[in-house]
Amino acid sequence: MNTTDISTFFYPRGVVLVGARRTPGFGFGVPMMFKEKGWDDRLYLVNPKGGEMHGMHVYKRVSEVPDALDLAIVIVPAPSVPGVLEELGSKGIRHVIIESAGFAETGDKGRVLQDEVKRILLKHGMRAIGPNCVGIVNTDNSFTTTETIEEAFTPGNVAIIAQSGVFGNILLDKLHLRGVFISKAVTLGNRIDVNEIEMLDYFHQDKATRLVMMYLEGAADGKRLTDALSKISIDKPVLVLKSGRTPQGMAATVSHTGSLSGEDSLYAGMFVQTGVTRVESLDELVEFTGVFASQPLPKGPRLGIVTGSGSMGALATDTAITSGLEVPPPSLSVVDEIKKSAPEWMNVKNPLDVGPSGLFKEALSAMVKDPEIDMVMAILTFPHKIFREFLTIGIDMQDMYGHIDAIGKLSPDKPLVVCVVGHDEFSSYISESAGPDIPVLHSPEMTVKALAALWRYSQWKKKILG
Amino acid sequence: MNTTDISTFFYPRGVVLVGARRTPGFGFGVPMMFKEKGWDDRLYLVNPKGGEMHGMHVYKRVSEVPDALDLAIVIVPAPSVPGVLEELGSKGIRHVIIESAGFAETGDKGRVLQDEVKRILLKHGMRAIGPNCVGIVNTDNSFTTTETIEEAFTPGNVAIIAQSGVFGNILLDKLHLRGVFISKAVTLGNRIDVNEIEMLDYFHQDKATRLVMMYLEGAADGKRLTDALSKISIDKPVLVLKSGRTPQGMAATVSHTGSLSGEDSLYAGMFVQTGVTRVESLDELVEFTGVFASQPLPKGPRLGIVTGSGSMGALATDTAITSGLEVPPPSLSVVDEIKKSAPEWMNVKNPLDVGPSGLFKEALSAMVKDPEIDMVMAILTFPHKIFREFLTIGIDMQDMYGHIDAIGKLSPDKPLVVCVVGHDEFSSYISESAGPDIPVLHSPEMTVKALAALWRYSQWKKKILG
Repeated sequence: MNTTDISTFFYPRGVVLVGARRTPGFGFGVPMMFKEKGWDDRLYLVNPKGGEMHGMHVYKRVSEVPDALDLAIVIVPAPSVPGVLEELGSKGIRHVIIESAGFAETGDKGRVLQDEVKRILLKHGMRAIGPNCVGIVNTDNSFTTTETIEEAFTPGNVAIIAQSGVFGNILLDKLHLRGVFISKAVTLGNRIDVNEIEMLDYFHQDKATRLVMMYLEGAADGKRLTDALSKISIDKPVLVLKSGRTPQGMAATVSHTGSLSGEDSLYAGMFVQTGVTRVESLDELVEFTGVFASQPLPKGPRLGIVTGSGSMGALATDTAITSGLEVPPPSLSVVDEIKKSAPEWMNVKNPLDVGPSGLFKEALSAMVKDPEIDMVMAILTFPHKIFREFLTIGIDMQDMYGHIDAIGKLSPDKPLVVCVVGHDEFSSYISESAGPDIPVLHSPEMTVKALAALWRYSQWKKKILG
Repeated sequence: MNTTDISTFFYPRGVVLVGARRTPGFGFGVPMMFKEKGWDDRLYLVNPKGGEMHGMHVYKRVSEVPDALDLAIVIVPAPSVPGVLEELGSKGIRHVIIESAGFAETGDKGRVLQDEVKRILLKHGMRAIGPNCVGIVNTDNSFTTTETIEEAFTPGNVAIIAQSGVFGNILLDKLHLRGVFISKAVTLGNRIDVNEIEMLDYFHQDKATRLVMMYLEGAADGKRLTDALSKISIDKPVLVLKSGRTPQGMAATVSHTGSLSGEDSLYAGMFVQTGVTRVESLDELVEFTGVFASQPLPKGPRLGIVTGSGSMGALATDTAITSGLEVPPPSLSVVDEIKKSAPEWMNVKNPLDVGPSGLFKEALSAMVKDPEIDMVMAILTFPHKIFREFLTIGIDMQDMYGHIDAIGKLSPDKPLVVCVVGHDEFSSYISESAGPDIPVLHSPEMTVKALAALWRYSQWKKKILG
């Protein structure tokens, strides 16, 4: 398969949806979604009952729909899928997204049905995503085969590969809240045909995609996955959350998408070898992605920490050291510069705790410019009662923290990440004022771990490129 | 010292605040706070300039204020602290909270000043919290010596001990958002006198406190801390976040509250021995506390997982196994009960993935009642686009998830925790409908780790009590 084949799933000319329904469910919601996003003029609905729906004509069978279409979405009960595929094949449709569940993930009977589907696909030379999935989202042309919130359509640079449809939906619901926006997303389900390997190749070529986040239960083909990851990682980072780390977790995935997960230690070694950032939790997947999607690669492991809270600075330092980063003293010139305006009680070191000196923006600028520091973390904390008073009397927090975005631009090749700890209102305020180029996280430990992962990827890439 | 001494800090009859100011800062904000909470009739302000402030008379010196007071709050620049303490001592005030910074945490000069303060305290037989702190909060009588948001005054069962004032403030700003409410809080700063050991003893006796969360940089006295923790842990769980795990992190704490942290491995062993739950991050401190504060202790390690997402179930299972829990199959009677109404495709096992069966509440009830399950985790996920549509047409999500609070009461002695993953609006909706007795977390891995910690504490307690 070449990437042109995959491309049709994301850029179809016309779509037939088999399984349109007037009762709640995807058969009802997905057609509505097409209408919302202006795709209804290229959508043809099929249901044996015919009639009309969302103001669109409903065809009674696939053979009745016009020819100018190249993608089918199938949302009928599992036992009806083989018959529908035969009709689609005869009609000359070569790309199909099978969203129906009830196949290999349910046991032996479902596995037989899935094998039958596979035979029909081969017979007609059809390519398929699914079954047991919700298909794809493409923010480039506002095309989606699932019900997707408006916030998720903001074009971004992150591609999602998820085996599970629900998992894909969860990410689409969450990511924008963390300032992460997607280029494209695909949920693969039982991977009867298209798998994560082809998707990695496709996203490697996709211009809109700068990095890939992936939820994996088990590889479709270990050897080929290794090759695909090795290739894409040189150009674009890949972050993977893999379940099935334990035999019990593995058993859970078998009945979920019918995967066989394989020994976790093999995956662990493979991910290290291919430069993949393996995350340990869903939260890490989301937060690391925000940092990888917006920050340049660090040139070295030296982390500078500027904080208004000594305890947060100490916690961040501990995590930095245990994650393989360094927290060296600032260079002498930087120390001298800050000492000029610093009060006597302030210790000018790293982490740089500015306390209530009011020197946060000066300290942050100096640290960002320091040639002996490779990446910077700004920890913002503020008693919320006082924050509310300041807002009331019109004091701008940027007087205190500076325009963080502009400070980051003092050294555009150096990662700068903000960690806000405290009340959600304060976090939202800072997120908004930091702008889209500076990721804002909410845990000192998570922030440091994300930077450490970025440094590990940077090292891997340097080693590979020689 | 006995706990009566400590009690005066939380339940004073009258308070003198030295360092009242008309310019922004604690000297301005704390008096306003007293007024807001109805404490202004027991507050006397002191500033050499005299006059009036927030409608209250300002005395020019300590000697002028009436005698009916037993607690002083000192918010003057560090060099003025010794003189103020002499005046307070002469006035017969025996309890003082020194909020001023600029002592041992700043270096040698500050250390000398702190020693002078110590001599004065001893001379007058005064007890002191601080310096370099923000003092205390008591939700029982709405007494606070720092600027505290209204949301933090809801009385709860969690006591906070923090070395750092900023850290204490951060917790007060955050906790209510996670459904955690406090009984009392204390920030100890440089611990010139009162330390975490005495506070543990005090909270051990305090009726309003059911558990203690603590941020520690280093023990004031390792041997006595071990004793205090051993004692309180039998009755009330203690959760500790300790910084200074690495030499670099340790160095950061020295300049922060002037602590010497000591070897981390010693602490690690001591925490295990005394039944303390040591957390690895600020997030864990907050989320674990929510679970410990509301849930009974599990009788065994068997976790039941009910989920609408197979991937979340697999991730939770992996974490359960690596955290020392078990995820056994449900008992046969429970399997039979669920199978009666389950569709053919549904695998009735553990994790119990109900998919789109609509059987979430039935499955959760059955798992909660299962005698072969010791604790239950409900994972709720829902495509947010559809959630919004449901809200619009008036569909109640409780039709789907049931009254989780009521389901929990089917086995009131068994922990039940909800994990919601997805859009923040959905999370908030579920948090509200779950009620105050069911903790709602947002990460499958974190939820499982909290339950595993609860089980470890339960085991420790059983072993100690024999």
